[in-house]
Amino acid sequence: MQGMMMNRPLSIIDILRYASETHPRGEIVSVRTEGDVHRTNYRETMGRVGQLAHALKAMGIEKGDRVATLAWNGYRHFELYYAISGIGAVCHTINPRLSAEQLIYITHHAEDRVLFVDTTFVPLIEALADKLPPNMRYVLMTDREHMPDSKVFFHCYEELLEGCPAEYDWPTVPEDSAAGLCYTSGTTGHPKGVLYSQRSTVLHAFTIAVTQDGSLKEASRLLPVVPLFHVNAWGLPYAAPLTGACLIFPGPAMDGKSLYDLMEREKVFSAWGVPTIWLGLLGEIKERGRNPEGFGEVIIGGSAAPRSMIEAFEKSGVTVCHAWGMTEMSPVGTDGGLSSDMKALPFDDQIKLKMTQGRRVFGVDLKIVDDAGNRLPHDGVAVGELFVRGNAIASGYFNNEEASKAAVDPEGWFGTGDIASIDADGFLRLQDRAKDLIKSGGEWISSIDLENIVMAHPDVASCAVIAVPHPKWDERPLLCVVPAGERKPPKEEMDKMLLEHVAKWQLPDDVVYLDALPLTATGKVSKLTLRQQFADYKLPDAV
Amino acid sequence: MQGMMMNRPLSIIDILRYASETHPRGEIVSVRTEGDVHRTNYRETMGRVGQLAHALKAMGIEKGDRVATLAWNGYRHFELYYAISGIGAVCHTINPRLSAEQLIYITHHAEDRVLFVDTTFVPLIEALADKLPPNMRYVLMTDREHMPDSKVFFHCYEELLEGCPAEYDWPTVPEDSAAGLCYTSGTTGHPKGVLYSQRSTVLHAFTIAVTQDGSLKEASRLLPVVPLFHVNAWGLPYAAPLTGACLIFPGPAMDGKSLYDLMEREKVFSAWGVPTIWLGLLGEIKERGRNPEGFGEVIIGGSAAPRSMIEAFEKSGVTVCHAWGMTEMSPVGTDGGLSSDMKALPFDDQIKLKMTQGRRVFGVDLKIVDDAGNRLPHDGVAVGELFVRGNAIASGYFNNEEASKAAVDPEGWFGTGDIASIDADGFLRLQDRAKDLIKSGGEWISSIDLENIVMAHPDVASCAVIAVPHPKWDERPLLCVVPAGERKPPKEEMDKMLLEHVAKWQLPDDVVYLDALPLTATGKVSKLTLRQQFADYKLPDAV
Ligand SMILES: Nc1ncnc2c1ncn2[C@@H]1O[C@H](COP(=O)(O)OP(=O)(O)OP(=O)(O)O)[C@@H](O)[C@H]1O
Ligand SMILES: Nc1ncnc2c1ncn2[C@@H]1O[C@H](COP(=O)(O)OP(=O)(O)OP(=O)(O)O)[C@@H](O)[C@H]1O
Ligand SMILES: [Mg+2]
Ligand SMILES: [Mg+2]
Repeated sequence: MQGMMMNRPLSIIDILRYASETHPRGEIVSVRTEGDVHRTNYRETMGRVGQLAHALKAMGIEKGDRVATLAWNGYRHFELYYAISGIGAVCHTINPRLSAEQLIYITHHAEDRVLFVDTTFVPLIEALADKLPPNMRYVLMTDREHMPDSKVFFHCYEELLEGCPAEYDWPTVPEDSAAGLCYTSGTTGHPKGVLYSQRSTVLHAFTIAVTQDGSLKEASRLLPVVPLFHVNAWGLPYAAPLTGACLIFPGPAMDGKSLYDLMEREKVFSAWGVPTIWLGLLGEIKERGRNPEGFGEVIIGGSAAPRSMIEAFEKSGVTVCHAWGMTEMSPVGTDGGLSSDMKALPFDDQIKLKMTQGRRVFGVDLKIVDDAGNRLPHDGVAVGELFVRGNAIASGYFNNEEASKAAVDPEGWFGTGDIASIDADGFLRLQDRAKDLIKSGGEWISSIDLENIVMAHPDVASCAVIAVPHPKWDERPLLCVVPAGERKPPKEEMDKMLLEHVAKWQLPDDVVYLDALPLTATGKVSKLTLRQQFADYKLPDAV
Repeated sequence: MQGMMMNRPLSIIDILRYASETHPRGEIVSVRTEGDVHRTNYRETMGRVGQLAHALKAMGIEKGDRVATLAWNGYRHFELYYAISGIGAVCHTINPRLSAEQLIYITHHAEDRVLFVDTTFVPLIEALADKLPPNMRYVLMTDREHMPDSKVFFHCYEELLEGCPAEYDWPTVPEDSAAGLCYTSGTTGHPKGVLYSQRSTVLHAFTIAVTQDGSLKEASRLLPVVPLFHVNAWGLPYAAPLTGACLIFPGPAMDGKSLYDLMEREKVFSAWGVPTIWLGLLGEIKERGRNPEGFGEVIIGGSAAPRSMIEAFEKSGVTVCHAWGMTEMSPVGTDGGLSSDMKALPFDDQIKLKMTQGRRVFGVDLKIVDDAGNRLPHDGVAVGELFVRGNAIASGYFNNEEASKAAVDPEGWFGTGDIASIDADGFLRLQDRAKDLIKSGGEWISSIDLENIVMAHPDVASCAVIAVPHPKWDERPLLCVVPAGERKPPKEEMDKMLLEHVAKWQLPDDVVYLDALPLTATGKVSKLTLRQQFADYKLPDAV
């Protein structure tokens, strides 16, 4: 029997419409590529989004068309999120750190019709324009004054808006319509497109709003360092207006000093980003001897937060929330917030919980399975591949039948490629990516575990453990270390630390010292690059 | 173009499943009809809900069947909410304060198959059983020890659960399936059934969770005085587990003293209920000279919160949130929470805002229209009938074609029967119910406005203004006053207060003094009864 309730399609533009009425003065602060700081609010933004929608229609954009962006975190990028999905088109955010080849591939694959570009990327577009889709039009996200001379024809963003009415008659679109498109980093093969819907986006916003109840609330000041150009800045552009929280956009300046200054000036309470970013900020905090004023919470995800980082923040009074997710999950899958009884545990026990990836958010189901696909118990011991299911999780990839087929198991669960255990309280502990696990003589070694321990060495700035082929054991771990200063910490010192937590056979066979670790387009350590670099490395006892 | 995200039906049982994993120790405290206080949590409750689901199946309950409840706020009632909707059946909550005739009517109309009853209502069932549906089965919500001798055969709730496994293989049901049924009070004609769906219920829970971000969060202690037997206790049974908030259920004891004691003992932070309840509590607070410990917030809805009540709470440090809703809206439509800039306004300005019914929640659209159905501006001046639209709003009434047709306008909006203005900031101000408005010589007089002012008189305990027929003016206002003590406040004193705010022609023509006001089944002043009582009343100048 059917209920007798109205069925109104869930719709992204409704979030901003609501914020503009109920949280009209909720602030959006942006560091601009023009060099200054720009301030606006949800009410003004709603008007500009209406103007932008008119401009998009005037450019001939229709429902389902892909409109791409190549931009930092800022108010114009935020406006594009809402105007594009609001008219029923698809907002395709492009990661500017992808390789030229990948950028060319995905703009063709997505069949983007217009590309909105921050001024930073004018040289990039000039270099690539010949190879991007021939009918592509370009809009530069600035005003007339800042328009450069260029061989590429750029429309001017502010000029497009000028004269357009702020009111727009937003269409009703079915809630399963495509609304956003984001390609994975493509660490293996071509990047794959994840096609978000109106429904998945609204439900994901709700989910993180109820999960992050400490910071996603009216007038709370949030800093998304996670980029709008990758997985929707973890959903903040939707969850913040839904709850009336303020958004502080850092623009291109994401080094420790710039972030510190911005946070101090804007009294940021909660900052969201990947571990590499927080290494920079922690360095700056150490130098200045105190936290930015008002700083109370940091959300860390994208790769494993090392223990030393969690401890550094917690000891300074900043609550750490370690979260896990994927492009394919909109992205949030688990959240490391502790319940109040856990907050009463001794410091060390809390840190142990925070080193896990946390517990599932509402609407996400988790299972771990063995190689044959059989479910494994959630006992904190069994380790298997993690599968997920939920309304904000991809059912396949855009225009990629092969990858789509491989993505989902016969029961309809998405395979994450992550290897994990889940304990009886629901805490997820990622061991590794399947492709990064080290298989030594039939046993697995978790690179994340080893890295976590080595990171605590005072002379280690960052590190990565990768598998290197070995004639007898198949693979053995190699430790790559970036020293913090002049001194190269000797292997023995790190082995000693490791032996407190792992078995002797899991110790790395060798250490190499590097100036920096290669990063992926999303700011994670690129183990693929390291593996290629050390593919022929001869381990001491393997000669 | 469709998105490529999974589509998992929104499902009520998922809320409890999530709470049992993520907020396992989230408390449910219940004052029992057995006389004691019972404590459990979301994890234990999930197990009992599984058992109850097995018991329902064993009784032959199938998807879509209606299972009714006649019970106070307590953990067993809460379990029924989840078990019934979890197996795909419909939880029909019955208001025990309805008249016998109405109870008989709706059990037949709903075709209830089983009725779950609190021990309080054994005599009621014994009196009515002959006239209730012949195949109805009865379950008494208690254990074997407390089972009474009765001429009606009652199953024993705890015995039904015993031996049933805690695990249940919850079915997947389409999200627009019926899940809950609640009849309106039926102040005119037969009560009408509102049929909630799985989808509407989950979305409504999300909505109030993000709206009430001060109290709907992990470990927060909530007191739903609003009954589980009417409009889902304003959605708290869903929003609380979704956010990890604790539920303190008062059982049958809703007088000021009992509530005070319970709140003090359980450190209730946020209490939800109708104005009549708070009159009782305020009396008790006055007597004891202080608030219950930990009391910080009161949500008032169901009828207009008088100024004197709002001031009394606010002055004592309890934040008032005045909300408006309807059975047909699941029920929350607007919420009176102030944004942080408004919280900085002078006390008096804040009170003025809190006397309005607040602003729309996410997912609810409001419009006011004139008699011809034309939209009126949201300027705080124009007054018209209020229409609403949203995912948690009824599209019609269960098995009632005539009422269904009349409910919705040609654009698909639901007509509330309330007369209101909306100001530029979105604040809704209810003037009256259409049927309670006083039409005097072609002009309207708002009974709510007059009552609000008179309530502030120290000698007035409560009051109501109703329309009485008048030969010249059609209708004129009659003021019904319940004195607070011995002294009957003379009309002149109240007129003087009124004249500070309203025009002379709006003054009541006469005053009558009553011992008590008649209440509806939901604890509101029954103006219908008053109107009938004074239908032949002769106003002084109308003789
Ligand atoms: N808190 C975390 N701890 C450990 N690993 C994490 C965490 N959060 C995310 N990850 C890793 O990041 C992955 C998701 O990252 P994302 O979707 O941004 O792109 P990617 O997987 O790095 O790129 P690609 O799929 O193209 O290789 C997860 O599958 C997981 O391996
Ligand atoms: N904050 C409020 N201020 C004034 N009136 C309110 C408020 N909240 C609710 N109401 C009134 O209560 C009505 C909804 O009440 P509810 O659905 O519980 O049953 P009812 O309308 O009293 O019963 P019936 O529809 O059978 O006559 C609203 O339409 C409105 O008139
Ligand atoms: Mg990936
Ligand atoms: Mg009504």
